Amino acid sequence: MVESWSFLDTAESNFRPLVVIELAKGTKEETIEWFTKRIVDKKANGGAQLLMKPLVTENGVENIYLVGASHLRLLLGAEAVGLVKECSDNSMRTFTYSSRKTFKHYADDNHDFLTMAECQYIIKHELENLRAKDEKMIPGYPQAKLYPGKSIVRRLLTSGILVQIFPLHDREELKKLSHSWYGRVKIGYQPLDDIRCYFGETIALYFGFLEYFTFALIPMAVIGIPYYVFAWEDYDKYVMFATFNLLWSTVILEVWKRMCAILTYRWGTLLMKRQFEEPRPGFHGVLGINPVTGREEPMYSSIKRQLRIYLVSLPFVCLCLYFSLYVMMIYFDLEQWALDYHKENESNFSSLMLYVPSIIYAVVIEIMNLIYRYAAEFLTSWENHRLESSYQNHLILKVLVFNFLNCFASLFYIAFVMFDMKLLRQSLATLLITSQILNQFAESLLPYWLQKRYNRRMKKRMCSTKSDMDLSLAEQVNMEKEMGTYLGTFDDYLELFLQFGYVSLFSCVYPLAAVFAVLNNITEIYSDALKMCRVYKRPFAEPTANIGVWQLAFETMSVISVVTNCILIGMSPEVDALFPDSKMNLVLTVALVEHLLLAIKFIMAFVIPDKPRDIQMKLAKLEFESLEALKQQVRAFEMQLHFLLVHH
Amino acid sequence: MVESWSFLDTAESNFRPLVVIELAKGTKEETIEWFTKRIVDKKANGGAQLLMKPLVTENGVENIYLVGASHLRLLLGAEAVGLVKECSDNSMRTFTYSSRKTFKHYADDNHDFLTMAECQYIIKHELENLRAKDEKMIPGYPQAKLYPGKSIVRRLLTSGILVQIFPLHDREELKKLSHSWYGRVKIGYQPLDDIRCYFGETIALYFGFLEYFTFALIPMAVIGIPYYVFAWEDYDKYVMFATFNLLWSTVILEVWKRMCAILTYRWGTLLMKRQFEEPRPGFHGVLGINPVTGREEPMYSSIKRQLRIYLVSLPFVCLCLYFSLYVMMIYFDLEQWALDYHKENESNFSSLMLYVPSIIYAVVIEIMNLIYRYAAEFLTSWENHRLESSYQNHLILKVLVFNFLNCFASLFYIAFVMFDMKLLRQSLATLLITSQILNQFAESLLPYWLQKRYNRRMKKRMCSTKSDMDLSLAEQVNMEKEMGTYLGTFDDYLELFLQFGYVSLFSCVYPLAAVFAVLNNITEIYSDALKMCRVYKRPFAEPTANIGVWQLAFETMSVISVVTNCILIGMSPEVDALFPDSKMNLVLTVALVEHLLLAIKFIMAFVIPDKPRDIQMKLAKLEFESLEALKQQVRAFEMQLHFLLVHH
Repeated sequence: MVESWSFLDTAESNFRPLVVIELAKGTKEETIEWFTKRIVDKKANGGAQLLMKPLVTENGVENIYLVGASHLRLLLGAEAVGLVKECSDNSMRTFTYSSRKTFKHYADDNHDFLTMAECQYIIKHELENLRAKDEKMIPGYPQAKLYPGKSIVRRLLTSGILVQIFPLHDREELKKLSHSWYGRVKIGYQPLDDIRCYFGETIALYFGFLEYFTFALIPMAVIGIPYYVFAWEDYDKYVMFATFNLLWSTVILEVWKRMCAILTYRWGTLLMKRQFEEPRPGFHGVLGINPVTGREEPMYSSIKRQLRIYLVSLPFVCLCLYFSLYVMMIYFDLEQWALDYHKENESNFSSLMLYVPSIIYAVVIEIMNLIYRYAAEFLTSWENHRLESSYQNHLILKVLVFNFLNCFASLFYIAFVMFDMKLLRQSLATLLITSQILNQFAESLLPYWLQKRYNRRMKKRMCSTKSDMDLSLAEQVNMEKEMGTYLGTFDDYLELFLQFGYVSLFSCVYPLAAVFAVLNNITEIYSDALKMCRVYKRPFAEPTANIGVWQLAFETMSVISVVTNCILIGMSPEVDALFPDSKMNLVLTVALVEHLLLAIKFIMAFVIPDKPRDIQMKLAKLEFESLEALKQQVRAFEMQLHFLLVHH
Repeated sequence: MVESWSFLDTAESNFRPLVVIELAKGTKEETIEWFTKRIVDKKANGGAQLLMKPLVTENGVENIYLVGASHLRLLLGAEAVGLVKECSDNSMRTFTYSSRKTFKHYADDNHDFLTMAECQYIIKHELENLRAKDEKMIPGYPQAKLYPGKSIVRRLLTSGILVQIFPLHDREELKKLSHSWYGRVKIGYQPLDDIRCYFGETIALYFGFLEYFTFALIPMAVIGIPYYVFAWEDYDKYVMFATFNLLWSTVILEVWKRMCAILTYRWGTLLMKRQFEEPRPGFHGVLGINPVTGREEPMYSSIKRQLRIYLVSLPFVCLCLYFSLYVMMIYFDLEQWALDYHKENESNFSSLMLYVPSIIYAVVIEIMNLIYRYAAEFLTSWENHRLESSYQNHLILKVLVFNFLNCFASLFYIAFVMFDMKLLRQSLATLLITSQILNQFAESLLPYWLQKRYNRRMKKRMCSTKSDMDLSLAEQVNMEKEMGTYLGTFDDYLELFLQFGYVSLFSCVYPLAAVFAVLNNITEIYSDALKMCRVYKRPFAEPTANIGVWQLAFETMSVISVVTNCILIGMSPEVDALFPDSKMNLVLTVALVEHLLLAIKFIMAFVIPDKPRDIQMKLAKLEFESLEALKQQVRAFEMQLHFLLVHH
């Protein structure tokens, strides 16, 4: 039984559980003892100096532990992770314990100075930085090797002794948040700051982007509606729409950078210093000396990794791309067959049949994306990248290329090989709508329903009819530990990325796409919010300063869409008719316009500053102050020296 | 007479003059007294704590002062400017006085630890940071207002009391350097490290780039020669050349970034922290509170500046561009006239006459560039930019746009409006060669000759026949102060930029351009070296980590050249003949190839890392160490706290 509190908690009477640690059933007693000792041990002895309590349920002890920390410990941890908080003078500064009095809302007895998500992030950081000293292996598990400096938690996770670590929900806060977020039907902004306080910056930034993107699509949707209502078919109108679309998409991506800077400045992550990146948990290799850190750690030859990437992953991706194209050709055969069938026996049923191939294809695309996703994850993990960031980049690249081709190849084929604008419009609509419906279903509603069913059975078993709010801590932990794990914002961004492709790549053919995108995104906000609050375990907060590689992905898509739209416009019979004498002039004009648009895009991206002026000023002020402080130090040193020289 | 040495020099017996200050003739005695007092005064009293001596010549005191500093003062200054030097363990670290013993070649009596250029840079930095305390004006000159924090030297310069500040040449070092640099004809690299030690990083980097660029052009030149020798006229060969050229130019620009990182890492400037930027000397406005620094300083409304830029500068630049096009049309009239003349009376003289319009036009272009340069400088200075960097960016943008159009408009016109490849080749050759000859002459030989003549007269007047080496300090100073001032690397880079345009924009028409560029650059290295060593005053060293905006300018040029070359190839009759049926297919193929090439360029730029792996590792190591140091601090603080809590 662990009851040896560490010294820092003397002032604290109540233990607030923040993080849950679940160990495997049947974990050896000596392992548990060693692990808990390391967690509660003093910093000076290489421990994490946290508080830890086993969870006692009706069935006795179940290898589930609750971790918390004293207020002081959390403040010191906030300094260690480099948290940036708001000062009393409204400027943002890196928190240090010694300057704690200058921060807004700081009081020695104000335990809400750090948000719960921040506290949980700090505990996660401290746990992950709990490192082996002279242990050669995990006590009780001789096959689980350790070396000095290896993160203990990561080794426990990879060897299966540690099942999971997750932060606890705060039922009360969650109820407040979900009420203001999706509880009532209202027109208005999401409570981004509250989302950030509860779920952390990465998730809040995703919802911020989703909201921003939805608002940004509204002008396109509004302009797109009359095309449907009045059945406009004049090509000059479509050209106008496409041109607006292209410039608009550049503007919104540039303005997003500014919005993002405003949000992350307010949240403090814009100023947060990057932490030194440790090897990712799955990385393995033979022990060697890391030339950067000078520490002994697993090393894996970069050449071997390159070989794996170029000799296995690359051919595999190419094969998948080929397979995707092959499926596409089958779809076209089906399409032809449906058309023939419709011609032969014309009926209501046959005209409905016309849509069937597209729908089947859309479903197949989603399934292929899903399967490929697993394959890509397996391959990228097998490539054995040392850093999480490098792993993520390779995974995202693999997935983006495949998904792009898988989703858009048929549309490109219809547009630029078959030249069938009618079919393009029909396919685009079917693909977009089907994929949106499938996504909403697979992503939120299905897990929600499964979760509901599980919860009901769970409660029945526990023979209680209490509402969620009245659950005991043990019941809450038991319920939450069975919830699914939220795997990050990757899939959500990917969905938006593909949607952006549907909206912008062929915007001059189907202006209504933006309308569907807006409608989807409004429900997406609600279903994603539901997913975060009710379906998944609470995720750990992750500080982030921007949406990272997705900004680049969206910008690339908007460059590609300039090319596709220009070609589409050039191919239209109406524009064709403007150049009756010479097709050459038409093509040359289209090429010229395309280059002009691209040039304008790049100039706009260059001219619009990435950060608003007031944020720039604030950053300049901070930089100035830190340089001044440095100068003061040098000056003080010079004075000291002067004093020494004069007096000796 | 200033003889009051400051305290730090007690250990130094000999005064080494580093920097010369020339005051205007007839400067009031009280001003001189105040200024010298501020320079030699102790740091604690707000002085610069430097050494200063008036220069005594045969004609008595001439308001010329020599500035030096004690060894210790220079070391402290090196810390203040954030100099990065090599440590004994071969890593690069920011120099601090307290860690001085860990640096390579450091010894208390080694006065060569800092190079002379570094010492001069430190003195310049200290002089520029000599700030007004409570003076309201410069003593003796009530119209030259001062406010607390204003740089005294800058105010003295703008009010004409201070004529110039320049660093002294080191005759002996210079002789050694010029011998190893251009003194003997040899094949080999320039002594870049010596150049850097003598002239500083900005100039050494320019010569590094010039050398790199010349080497990079050699493959193009080598491939280009057979086209001339064998009079190849097959278009497929030209296509091959152009394709090679386009990919090659991307590669060389990317590889330069890596080379640049290697050089500036070795020189320490890659790691040097950016200093906070002060307002530029010419900036004026009404006194206000700067929101960033909180200091009282001149403020100028950003809206007024924008109005000046958009309502005056922009129209003026457009007018100049129009004028340049107008001159171009006159050139084409002349060209036509010469052609007619040649047809009417065919003779040797008339065929020579064919080249005259191009030569005249080339000369006119150079003159227009020169005049426009002055106008652009005047306008940009009138726009009243607060920061030197913003001033430079606006100036460079203005000059680049005009020079690009002025130099290349006629070639674009000939290529894409007149479709006259023969004339294009002839014009290109004439423009390139004439501009190179003019540049070499105007830039180095003319000033050199003027300087020589001046020196001869000077020596005659001084009635001495001594060689340069034997000149007394007074004679040296008197001679150097009359030398021209080197105005920075702008013109040199601009010349290379235009040359790169001539070589790459129309490379598939005139492969020989690269040969001329290589030949020009080899002589350019010599003439620029001569210019630096013999014609101009020694410039102050300027630390820099890269070639800045020029990298972007060269990359933009290489993107434009993809477009021009693709069009040129598409227009050629040989490629035309490959598509006998349909011009459409030709144009579409060309557009496709162009987009592919552009995509390859961007992917290559993205894939090739900007810094070589070993530099990345070294930087990662430094980052790791500083983070570790920070962690140690936090840990030490936690221990201290622990101690306090336990013992109280």
